[in-house]
This record gives sequence, structure tokens and C-alpha cells, in this order.
Amino acid sequence: MPFTQELAEWVAQAPRSWSPEAIDAAERAIADTIACIIAGAGDDAPLRVMRGLGAWGSHGLASAAGRSTGLDAPWAALLNGTAAHALDYDDVLDPAASHASAVMAPALLALAEEVDASGADLVDAYIVGIEVQECLAEAVNMVHYTRGWHTTLTLGAPSAAAACARLLRLPAAQARNAISLAASMAAGFKRQFGTNAKPFHAGLGAKSGIVAARMAGAGLTADAAVFEGERGFGDLMVGAGAAGFSPAILARLRSGPPAVLAPGLWLKRYPCCASTHRPVDAFLALAREHGLRAADIERVDTLVSDAAVGNLMYREPVNEMQARFSMPYCIAAAAHDGDLKLATFNMAALQRAELAQFMPRVDMQSDPEQPADMPSTVKSWGTTTILTHDGRRFSKTVVDPKGYPDNALDEGELARKFADCARGQPDGVLQSYPAWREIAGQSRLRPLCAILQQVGRPDGAAKEV
Amino acid sequence: MPFTQELAEWVAQAPRSWSPEAIDAAERAIADTIACIIAGAGDDAPLRVMRGLGAWGSHGLASAAGRSTGLDAPWAALLNGTAAHALDYDDVLDPAASHASAVMAPALLALAEEVDASGADLVDAYIVGIEVQECLAEAVNMVHYTRGWHTTLTLGAPSAAAACARLLRLPAAQARNAISLAASMAAGFKRQFGTNAKPFHAGLGAKSGIVAARMAGAGLTADAAVFEGERGFGDLMVGAGAAGFSPAILARLRSGPPAVLAPGLWLKRYPCCASTHRPVDAFLALAREHGLRAADIERVDTLVSDAAVGNLMYREPVNEMQARFSMPYCIAAAAHDGDLKLATFNMAALQRAELAQFMPRVDMQSDPEQPADMPSTVKSWGTTTILTHDGRRFSKTVVDPKGYPDNALDEGELARKFADCARGQPDGVLQSYPAWREIAGQSRLRPLCAILQQVGRPDGAAKEV
Repeated sequence: MPFTQELAEWVAQAPRSWSPEAIDAAERAIADTIACIIAGAGDDAPLRVMRGLGAWGSHGLASAAGRSTGLDAPWAALLNGTAAHALDYDDVLDPAASHASAVMAPALLALAEEVDASGADLVDAYIVGIEVQECLAEAVNMVHYTRGWHTTLTLGAPSAAAACARLLRLPAAQARNAISLAASMAAGFKRQFGTNAKPFHAGLGAKSGIVAARMAGAGLTADAAVFEGERGFGDLMVGAGAAGFSPAILARLRSGPPAVLAPGLWLKRYPCCASTHRPVDAFLALAREHGLRAADIERVDTLVSDAAVGNLMYREPVNEMQARFSMPYCIAAAAHDGDLKLATFNMAALQRAELAQFMPRVDMQSDPEQPADMPSTVKSWGTTTILTHDGRRFSKTVVDPKGYPDNALDEGELARKFADCARGQPDGVLQSYPAWREIAGQSRLRPLCAILQQVGRPDGAAKEV
Repeated sequence: MPFTQELAEWVAQAPRSWSPEAIDAAERAIADTIACIIAGAGDDAPLRVMRGLGAWGSHGLASAAGRSTGLDAPWAALLNGTAAHALDYDDVLDPAASHASAVMAPALLALAEEVDASGADLVDAYIVGIEVQECLAEAVNMVHYTRGWHTTLTLGAPSAAAACARLLRLPAAQARNAISLAASMAAGFKRQFGTNAKPFHAGLGAKSGIVAARMAGAGLTADAAVFEGERGFGDLMVGAGAAGFSPAILARLRSGPPAVLAPGLWLKRYPCCASTHRPVDAFLALAREHGLRAADIERVDTLVSDAAVGNLMYREPVNEMQARFSMPYCIAAAAHDGDLKLATFNMAALQRAELAQFMPRVDMQSDPEQPADMPSTVKSWGTTTILTHDGRRFSKTVVDPKGYPDNALDEGELARKFADCARGQPDGVLQSYPAWREIAGQSRLRPLCAILQQVGRPDGAAKEV
């Protein structure tokens, strides 16, 4: 059976019987995404999106963080998706090199509110959507990502459409049309990194998933082989060197654990680009092990994948956003603070003279053993080498940074991340964590989602955006 | 100055002083698009889009054909854009190989209604948007189109964003961000041809233009060199063989007539794929000249560009949509009816036995002198050769089919096209033609646009979509 057709049939027909472990993994990722939405809602990008929306959809049924009244589902998804990814604290599906849940969770939450779905249905659709994204990722990456496509949107939109089709219980032909229509919304270059457009891509992916599924559910037709067909996604947006849209990839749909468990989602320990996490973890481990303080260090050399070098564009960041994509800044902050937290990425932290002095000592190079066309299923790694003033040299390679599926945040770490993200918010927001963490048990989602409408600006001030 | 920056500065700063000829050309194209929207509103695709929207945006200020109450501007643009292109009767900007006005006019009409703009402002923004699309087309085509991208959306979205930025009088930096954000919505493969997704692409382009401009106007930032920059539009969606995003292309912004005049828009004479028009015109001219009836004809050979062959996928069409993309059907209908009209493309017309018998006599071949990488500014041509039962052979090549800029519809033909498209509609719709035709003179557009809300189903029946 052709790839797209088989994928769509699975979306429509997969049994709604997931293991407790799979449900738990989905709940963790959704709760983590909510934390990121709450923390990100006050950032420039979502505030500008909110202003840009004006009165559109203002009689809607869906909730967006920082908006005290309901919105039509597409705009709520756009806003929450943008907020979720604004601080780059949201999770990663590593083979996709995408911010999977920043697209998937806002799409499903908004649609679930609109159709008054249950938490169990939402979690089911989430598991399906991540599975679809994993299949697409194995077909196209790392070639597709390293060519320059921002997979958060290019893979996020079709897989969110699949998830929304699942939530709406569309039959296979309509699920296929939903995925295909979303492929017509799957644009977005990594060139947009460093601007508001990057988190906006997550919002666009979420919105596109909802729109595509609603249109397909209303009967709108689309091409049946949009991925594998001649001059389709594979020909125009991937090219040679990738596995391609082979039905063999879909074998994973019939056996083995779902993608929420293997490869699993990378819930981030640090609120900055995932490409920094391995060298930062290696740095912190070496510093701890050898009792090194920032003042002891002569220089730090980091070695990362070709894709990571492309992402980390800022040697001398001038704002919080650039700081999240700066290896020198992240290593310098780790050296001085022993950790990277939300407060690491504000202007006051950024302007510290000691960090400016440390940053030139940090180098980053591309690892020739991690080329642009690495298969999506091979894990990346990062190596940090520290040279001290007194001539000692320490080196460490990290494959599974803290938060990575095989080195997951424990329950306390996840709860503390939520609390850190919700700091200064109303009690209803602060206390909502257990409900998000066990969302599959919510018989109706509307009351829970409405809590997002309470999210305010922690500083209480009207920020100029 | 870099390409995107220069383009955006022109969008923001070009004098608002167009020649009467340019204004007239824009008004003709807009009136023609309204005709297509009215005729197309009852087609499957827009009816399904309407159903898919549900209650979204139902308190909005913009009008969509066939919807009796207002809609938020993005959804009105989505609906009208889909309707405008549903019958493939809408105009073409030939170097772009795009349905330019099916994107541009719905975007601007919806936004103009929302901000209560004047007809003069709308026409100004329309002229700017078409100019931007022409510049993009000269940079990327025909390579981009023949690779498989549906330029109606891929070029339509950024140029509609430019037009919307102009209407909103955004400063240059925001106009640039609007164009760049729209590039993140500029997906869409020609593989979608033959499905509802094709006209939906026009709607998506219109909606994207509005959303991108509104977001940019609210301060959302985006990459400054999205077209010409490394791994931007040019690298990822065009490739070798095109002119590329060279500032030299933008010389046209500083001298010579605007794109609405040169190359001008191709307002269609027939409600079917533009790729059929040259051979059909050649056929009708030969038949007239030599007094040929269908019964006289042994066979018809047509020779068209490589791109045209790719578009005309249906040798034996089974529905109206496929018939619009079938050279055998269009030639057979022309042979029997002496014309191609709206009524040519319904199921009753399609099921005529005499057409089924004639179609196998029609052949179509790719002209080796019109390869896939023809420059966008070289006109295409089509050749038809008729062989009669009594052994006579007649051949004719057409470069400028009826409706093409150098062979434009005259005033009577344009008015009759509108009347044909509005047949059976309420008087308010039927009688609105003069107002659309001179839209630049409307001090406020809301009353005129609201007429679209009167558009109904000519057959009065609830069609099953």
C-alpha cells in the first residue's frame, strides 16, 4: 500500500489501547508543554501575535495563555504554539529535529476544547500524532532538516493534522486528505531562526493541523500521495540521501513501542537551543567532578554536529533570544552559575561583565564524524574539552543529556520546571500542574484548558512589544 | 541593496500615483475576479471550506460569496480565494504561471472591508501586489513552477502579503517582515492539481497575505533575506537555471509600466485550464476559416509546452474538474459547440456521447522547443493541426489567445463574462458589475463588498458536497 495511504489508514484505525507507559509519556510531554506555554506567554512573539489577531475569533471556545477570553481554535493554537516555543524550553523529537509538542499539544488542546473532548481522547490523538511525525522524520532526516527546512513546521503541520483527524475520528480517506492539505501549509526555513518567526512556526504548525483536519472533515479533497508521489514532498523538499517514504518505515506502526516511548521525547532541562545541551552537560559534569570554578578556566572547546553548528549562530549575543542560540553564552553562564534557568536568559543576566569576559574563551567546531546527512535514527553527541589556567585538560562526551529520553527528567525535576515556569502566576495556574500531569483522567478538558486564560504577566506591567 | 529589502522599501514607499491605464487594468482584473468568485461560490471546494469553517470568525467584518453574514477577514479571503479559482476561469499572470488575482483580490477585499479602506487604496495595493509577484516570478520561473511548485500559493502568499502591507501602510521594515512571514506559509505542490486543494491554494494564499501583514504590523519579526539568503527560498525552492533574486530584476520598479500593464494579466476567455486556451483558439480559428464541422474532422494534434502537458492530466475526464484539465475534452467541446462556456463544464455536457466519440481523435504532445526551464518572460505558444476525413490538413500556432494581454477581452466581452457568471443571482449581484468595474472610484468598499453576501446558489437547491 502507498506510504501516505497506509499512514492515514493507521491514523483512522489504530486501536485506542495504549500502554500505561505510553499514556504517561504523553502526559509528561503535555504537562511540560503547558509549562513552556505559561513561561513563554509573556515573550515578544506571542504578545505580537495576540496584537496582530485583533478581534479575530474573539467569540471562540478555545483558550490561549494570556488571553482572558475565548478564541476560535486556530488562533488559540497559533498563540499557544508560539508561546510554547518562544523560550526554546519546549520538547524535541530528536529524529525529527523538531519541537514536536509545541505544535501537537496546542493544536489538540484547542480542538479538544472546541469539540469538548476528553483527556483520554486528547492523549490518544497526541500519541498518534507523534507516531506520524516519527515516521515522517525517519523518511526525510537528517537530509531534510540540514538542507534548511524547519521541521517544527514542515513535519509539524502534517503530523498535527493527523492528530487532529484522530481526535475528530475522521475516516481514513479524510485523514489522508487532512495530512495532504497540511502538506500545503508545510513551509518554513531555518533561515527564520533568530527572529520571532521561529516560534511563530510552531504556532503555524498547530493552526495548520486544525484547519487541515476541519477542512478534510468537511469533505475537502487533496492529493493521495503527497509525500511519496512524483514531485511531492520527497522530491521537492527532501531529495537524495534520505531513507525516503518507503512503506518499510511504517513497519513500526505494527510492532514495538510507540514513538512517545521509543525514541521518546526530549523534555528540556535548560531553556535554550537543544544543540547546546550536550556540551553544557559535559561542561557541568567536568566542572563538578574536578571542582572547577569559572576563574580556573583558560578555554573551553566544544565539538558538535554540523546541524548544531548551523543552529548556534551567535558568538556575541545581544538579546535573550540570541543568547539561547549561543554556545559561548550558554557555557559562560553554566561556568558562572552552575546551571541554566529561565533567569539565565534575561537582559540583566546577559549584561554581566564576567560573562562577556568569559565568552571569547569558548570555541565551537563541527564534528566531522556527524555530517549533515546522518540518518535520523542515529543519536548525536557533543564533546566538551576544558583547559585550565594551570594546564590541566579534561574532556567528556555526552550522548544523552539530562532530559533526553534515556536520561529523563524525574518527577521532581519536571514538577520544579513547571513551578519555575509558573512563578508569579495566579494560584489557579500554579496549582494546575497535577491536573495537566494526569490529563488522560480528565473526563472534560474545558475547565482545565480555561485555566490558561488566567495566565498573566508575572511582572504585572504592560510590556512594550 | 539586498533583493528583499529593496522590494519591501518599494512596497512601503512607491508613489501612490498610477496612470489611468494601470488603474483601469487593475479594475478590470478585480471585476473579472468577482465574476469568477460569484460563479465559483457554488462549487464543491468553497462549499466544503464553508462547512469546514463552522462557526469560526462568524462575527467578522468581511464578506464572502455565498455566506449571508460577515466573517473575519482571513476566512473571508480563504473562501473567496477558493471560489475565485474553483472553476479555473480566473486570471493568470503568465510569467508567474499563477492565478494572481484569485489570491490578490480576495486578500485585499477582505482586509479593505475590515479596515474600511477606499477603492483607490485597494487598487493601489493591488497594483503593488501584482508588481511584487512579477518580480518574484522573473527571479524564479519557469524553473520553480516546472519543478512542481504551485506558484498560485508559493508566489501568491508573499505578494499578497506585500499588497496587504501596502493597504495597511506598513513601514518598510514591517512590509519586509510581512513578505518574509508569508514565505513561511508558501507551500503547495502542483501534485494537488485535480483535487479541491488546487483552488484551496488560492484561498490559502489570500488568507496568508492578510495574516502575515497583520502579524508584521503588530511587530512580529522575520528573516530579512528570505528569498536571496543562503538556504532561503531561492536555494530550497528554485535552484539552478532561474534568473535568481538579483537586484537587477528590481530595475522594473524604477521605470517602465507596472506589471498590471506589462506583461499584464490574462483574463480568461474560457473556464478551463489556461494551458488549453492557445490550442482551442487555434482550433476555432481554423474551423471558422475553413468551415469545418466536428463531423468533418479525422483527428486533431496539439503541441504545447512541457509545463502545459504536465497540467493537462486527463485524457478521459470523469467529472467537471477533470474536464477543465483535459485537452481532448476542451477540443471536442469546441468542435461541437464552437465555444467553451460555463455550461460546457457540467456533468450533462460532459456525458454527451458525441464528445466521448470525438475525444480519442485528439492528441497532445510536448513541444521540444518549449522546455521546462524557459525563462519566465518568454511567451509560450500552442499549435493545433487538423486533419479532415477528406485528407486536408490545416495548422495554426497561437501565441496570444483571446483574453491574453495583447489580445484582451473587450469591454463587451468582459461584461458578458460577468453576466454569464452571475446568471440566476439576485438583482443586487447582477447589477453590481459597473461598481466593481470602476472600483477605484468607491470611497468606501463595505457596501459594495457586502453584495457578495447576497450570492446564492443559482439552482436554489442544497447541493450535497
